Amino acid sequence: MFIIGELINGMYKKVAKAIAERDKIYIQSLAQLQVEAGADALDVNCGPLSRDPLVDMLWLIDCIQDTVSVSLSLDTTRQNIMEEGLARLKKKGIINSTSADTERLEVYLELAKKYNASLIALTMDKKGVPQDKDRRLELAASILDTAQKHNFSPNDIYLDPILLPINVAQNQLFAILEAIRDFKLLSAPSPKTIVGLSNISQGAKDRSLINRSFLTMAAAFGLDSAILDPLDEPLMDSLIAGENVLNKSIYCDNFVSAYKKSKKR
Amino acid sequence: MFIIGELINGMYKKVAKAIAERDKIYIQSLAQLQVEAGADALDVNCGPLSRDPLVDMLWLIDCIQDTVSVSLSLDTTRQNIMEEGLARLKKKGIINSTSADTERLEVYLELAKKYNASLIALTMDKKGVPQDKDRRLELAASILDTAQKHNFSPNDIYLDPILLPINVAQNQLFAILEAIRDFKLLSAPSPKTIVGLSNISQGAKDRSLINRSFLTMAAAFGLDSAILDPLDEPLMDSLIAGENVLNKSIYCDNFVSAYKKSKKR
Repeated sequence: MFIIGELINGMYKKVAKAIAERDKIYIQSLAQLQVEAGADALDVNCGPLSRDPLVDMLWLIDCIQDTVSVSLSLDTTRQNIMEEGLARLKKKGIINSTSADTERLEVYLELAKKYNASLIALTMDKKGVPQDKDRRLELAASILDTAQKHNFSPNDIYLDPILLPINVAQNQLFAILEAIRDFKLLSAPSPKTIVGLSNISQGAKDRSLINRSFLTMAAAFGLDSAILDPLDEPLMDSLIAGENVLNKSIYCDNFVSAYKKSKKR
Repeated sequence: MFIIGELINGMYKKVAKAIAERDKIYIQSLAQLQVEAGADALDVNCGPLSRDPLVDMLWLIDCIQDTVSVSLSLDTTRQNIMEEGLARLKKKGIINSTSADTERLEVYLELAKKYNASLIALTMDKKGVPQDKDRRLELAASILDTAQKHNFSPNDIYLDPILLPINVAQNQLFAILEAIRDFKLLSAPSPKTIVGLSNISQGAKDRSLINRSFLTMAAAFGLDSAILDPLDEPLMDSLIAGENVLNKSIYCDNFVSAYKKSKKR
């Protein structure tokens, strides 16, 4: 699974403070720790308190790129920040994210093409977040249709079914698993799939336990990628074991430590 | 999920010793601990070293029934022991197990009918254990067909796809998950499904981690029942969380402890 580390996000107080104070060491160590723990990419979000989100985003990108060489997922709703950020990247970037609204989607598809980036597309539109699997599939098909019109490969699209919190939408979680499985059938080549894992346990207790239960199931339903906390060791161990059960890595007695060693660069 | 505790098995040295010495207290505490930890039924197996397996089985049954009131799963390959054991049960029993070989299957179907027991049927026959999903489905269909001829309800059949160890058959584990899902489609009403969970990690390291990864996935693929170690707390926590994610229990902040309390009788 392609793991995007979620920790460099200004909604966390310490990160917001580090951004405000230009504390390179804090941000860089958070980048290094996540990569060493198994992150294949890092999400970058200035947070809601940023006074100058464009300047903050560019500072974060430079700061992170100075210390690790993984892809960055730019997490902003502002188009100008997304574009200036993409222009700054040394590696293929990830746009996080667009909705299925055609107007917005088309702008981001063109942006992704211009900067050779991947695109996370949420299966939601102006009408809101779907309440069932069929509506998710309908929006996913519409996203892929628009992408095709723009000659954008499904290989570079990460469809996000929008994982909802267990304490408000418990009855939708299985439909979301099924959507993850069925999204893959909508085009050839298949689109990729992604979830923002921590959403499932927003406001819940036993967060790590709930997160890793869902992630293990989602892996078995074919999930390609997740935005998550790679420093949650039980979560990462579950993921490593889950992928082993799914025959995506070769079993050996020390498969957990072998995986971890392979990530220490 | 219907949980069958696996610990009263003479293949464990301490259990074999307790059986040989008629140590009621040891066996009864093992029964109580498993039930308190969430077992809905208990497997009973005299083990390979039993000198008089019929007498030992009847002693075990009496001993366990004196202290807990859950169903017992009689785990013996000998038909006469199975029958005398079934005759001794106070609650609806579980026959563990028959293969798909018609001759053997028919005997056990009749035994299950006579004693109003459930029947665990392994999808294997004289030719051996299947190496793919299709052969498992073929044997499952044949079992259900024979059951129908004997007027035996699929509700009382637990189909077991035979979970193989990850260190010898890693490439079959996903096919086993798919078999669990697809068995349910073979008849209406659907048969039940079961696995002997510990098999997956025979001879492996990180056994509990592998066991709970598979169990979480299998729950999402619709598994009805598992024979497992209910004293493995991380395993039980995973199962409780997994069922909550699947909306099979109602979410509340303390759903793990609520489940555990509900089992303390």
